[in-house]
Amino acid sequence: MPELRYDILSGTYTITASERSKRPNDFRSAQEHKEPVPETDPGCPFCVGNESETPPEVYALRDSGAENEPGWRVRVVPNKFPALRPTETEEVDPGRVDTQITPEVDDTSMYWSMPGIGAHEVVVESPLHNGTLGDYTVDEMTEIIETLKQRYRVLCDDKYIKYVQIFRNWGPQGGASLLHPHFQIIGLPLMPPEVSTEMFRFREYESKTGRCLMCDYVERETEKDERVALRNEEFIVLCPFASRFSFETLIVPRKHSVTFSELDNDKARQLAEVFASLFRAYEDLFSSLSYNIVFHTLPTPRRSRKPPTDHWHIHVYPRLNVEAGLEKGAAVWINPTPPELAALQFGGKG
Amino acid sequence: MPELRYDILSGTYTITASERSKRPNDFRSAQEHKEPVPETDPGCPFCVGNESETPPEVYALRDSGAENEPGWRVRVVPNKFPALRPTETEEVDPGRVDTQITPEVDDTSMYWSMPGIGAHEVVVESPLHNGTLGDYTVDEMTEIIETLKQRYRVLCDDKYIKYVQIFRNWGPQGGASLLHPHFQIIGLPLMPPEVSTEMFRFREYESKTGRCLMCDYVERETEKDERVALRNEEFIVLCPFASRFSFETLIVPRKHSVTFSELDNDKARQLAEVFASLFRAYEDLFSSLSYNIVFHTLPTPRRSRKPPTDHWHIHVYPRLNVEAGLEKGAAVWINPTPPELAALQFGGKG
Repeated sequence: MPELRYDILSGTYTITASERSKRPNDFRSAQEHKEPVPETDPGCPFCVGNESETPPEVYALRDSGAENEPGWRVRVVPNKFPALRPTETEEVDPGRVDTQITPEVDDTSMYWSMPGIGAHEVVVESPLHNGTLGDYTVDEMTEIIETLKQRYRVLCDDKYIKYVQIFRNWGPQGGASLLHPHFQIIGLPLMPPEVSTEMFRFREYESKTGRCLMCDYVERETEKDERVALRNEEFIVLCPFASRFSFETLIVPRKHSVTFSELDNDKARQLAEVFASLFRAYEDLFSSLSYNIVFHTLPTPRRSRKPPTDHWHIHVYPRLNVEAGLEKGAAVWINPTPPELAALQFGGKG
Repeated sequence: MPELRYDILSGTYTITASERSKRPNDFRSAQEHKEPVPETDPGCPFCVGNESETPPEVYALRDSGAENEPGWRVRVVPNKFPALRPTETEEVDPGRVDTQITPEVDDTSMYWSMPGIGAHEVVVESPLHNGTLGDYTVDEMTEIIETLKQRYRVLCDDKYIKYVQIFRNWGPQGGASLLHPHFQIIGLPLMPPEVSTEMFRFREYESKTGRCLMCDYVERETEKDERVALRNEEFIVLCPFASRFSFETLIVPRKHSVTFSELDNDKARQLAEVFASLFRAYEDLFSSLSYNIVFHTLPTPRRSRKPPTDHWHIHVYPRLNVEAGLEKGAAVWINPTPPELAALQFGGKG
C-alpha cells in the first residue's frame, strides 16, 4: 500500500508509491546529450582559451597566467545572462532595498515588486569540458568547495544581499543550459520562502525541545541506519524519510554547524570525499542523470549577533520523476522509490 | 533590468528576466512525441474497445452500450496504478485517519506517516486517442467539465478525503505517461500544504480588508487590462503578475464563487468556452506544449457549516522553463517571459 510521509524540514508530504514505477509510458525518455563529451569545446565560453567570452573573472585558482588568461584550475565569473544584477550597473534607490520587508497579505502588496538586484556568479569547476563530480580527485573537489565558500562569504558581505543560494544544475531535466561543469551562486535581495520555512521550523523545533532539529534527525537516522547512504567522520549522506525524488539525498555535517562559512580546511576535505563517493555512486547507478544540488545555509552571522537557529546542509534532487499536477497543485510529491531502497543501492544497509 | 515580483496568492517570488531567453543552450530541446497521433491506438488502455484493460468504470456519459463497453463519450475509471487507494481495498484503522491532524514541528513527528488512502481516478475525456483541449467543441468540453464536477462532488463526500485535487498533465515535461487525453482526480486524506497556504492568505486578506483577495485581484486586473488574456461574461483568464512559468495563466470566475461545486450548467458552458479558446490559442502558439492544469477548490462545504473564505480558480502551468536550483533551493522562480507580453500573444491588450 502506498504511504504518505511528512517531511519535518519543509512541512510537505510525499506519497511513497513503488507500484507506480510499473506504469506504461508512451513517451520515449527525453533525449539526453548522448555523444561522448570532448575534453574541450572551441565553442564553449567556459573552456580554456575562451576566457574573453565571459565577463571578467572575480576569482580564480591558478597554476599560471594572468587574470582572464589560461592557467586556471577553478574560475569564477559573473553570469553573462544574470537573473539578478549588482547595483553598480544600474541606478537603484538603496533606500528602497534597505527597507525591504516581507510583503503584507493585503491590498497594498498585490503588486509588490522590487528591482532585480543581487548577484549571479558561475563557478567553472574545471578546465575539463567533460569533467564530472564523480571524476574529480579529492584535491580538485576540495578546491571547488573552498572556492564556493570564498564567494559565498564575499556575497554575504554585500549589504544588498540577504541570502546566498549556491546550486548546481546538471543535465537537461535539471535545467542546465551549458555542458561545461559549473556551480552557480545567486545573491538574493530577500530571504526566500523555502529558506524562511526551514528557519521557522528549526526555531519551532528548538523552542519545543531545546535541541537542534537537524542534530536530532542525524542522531536518529544514524541509530536506525536504514536510510544512510554513506558517511565519514564529519559528514553523513541520508536518503530523506519523505524523499520527493527517487534517489534524493541530504548531505549534513554530523556535528552541529550553523553555516557553511564555519567549514575549515579539514572539513572541506571530508566534504570533498563525500561528494566524490556520492557522485561516483550516482554515475555508476545511472548512465545519464539530471539533478540539482542546492545548499541551504544562512548568511554568515555578523560577529555581534547571536547565531541563528540553523544547521546547514545540502540537498541533492535527482530529476528522475517529473513533478506534475499533484506536485504543482498540492505540494504533495509522488515518489516511486522508497528511500530505504535507495540507501541500499548506495551501499548502505537499507 | 530584471524585476523581482511577489505573488500574493502563494507568497513566493518570481524574477522576471527576459534577457535570459537569449542564453545559449547545449541541449537540443527534449524530444516530444512528434509523429502524428492516430485517432485510435490498439495498445492504449483508454481507447474504445479496450475497456477491460482499465479497472471497472465508476461513471460514464454514453450514447449506447452497457457499463465497461464501447459507446461512451466520457469515461471515469480508477487509476490502475493509484498514488492513493480507497479504504475498501485494505485494512485501515479509520480511527487513525479520522484523527489526522497537521503534524507538530517536534520530535514526535519526525517520522510522521499515514497509510496512503484516498482515491485516484482517471477521466478519459474523449474516445479520440488524439483529442486535444483545443479541438473539442464547446458541447464536448462542457461534458468533460460536468464530469469533473460530478466526481469532485462524490469524492468530497468520502469521509476519508479532506481535499480533492483535479489536474491534467500534458506532454512529457508535464509528467504525462499516456497520450490518450485525460484528467486525473486525486482525493487526499489531508489538506495539502499548497492549498493550506492559499487558504491562510485568503483569510489573512479578508481579516485585513474585509474583502475577497481574488475578487479584488480580478477587479484590479480588469481595470488595468495589461495581463488579461481573454474573458467572457462569467470567466476571466489572466497572466499572473508574478507568473512562475512562461505563458502561465489563471482562470477565475468573475463573480465571487467559493467552490467548483457551485458551477451551474450555464457557467459550465461558459467555462468550456474559455477552455476551448485558451487551449486553441496555446496550440496555435506552440506546436507541442507540455503543461499542467491544476484546480484549486476547497471541498464542497457541508450544509451546516459556514462556507470557507475562498474563491476557486484554475492554474495552467506551461512547462516551458525548467525549474532548477534556484526554484528548488529557494522557491524563487526565474521567468524569461513577462506576463504582459504573454497576454498580448493571447490577443489581450498587454
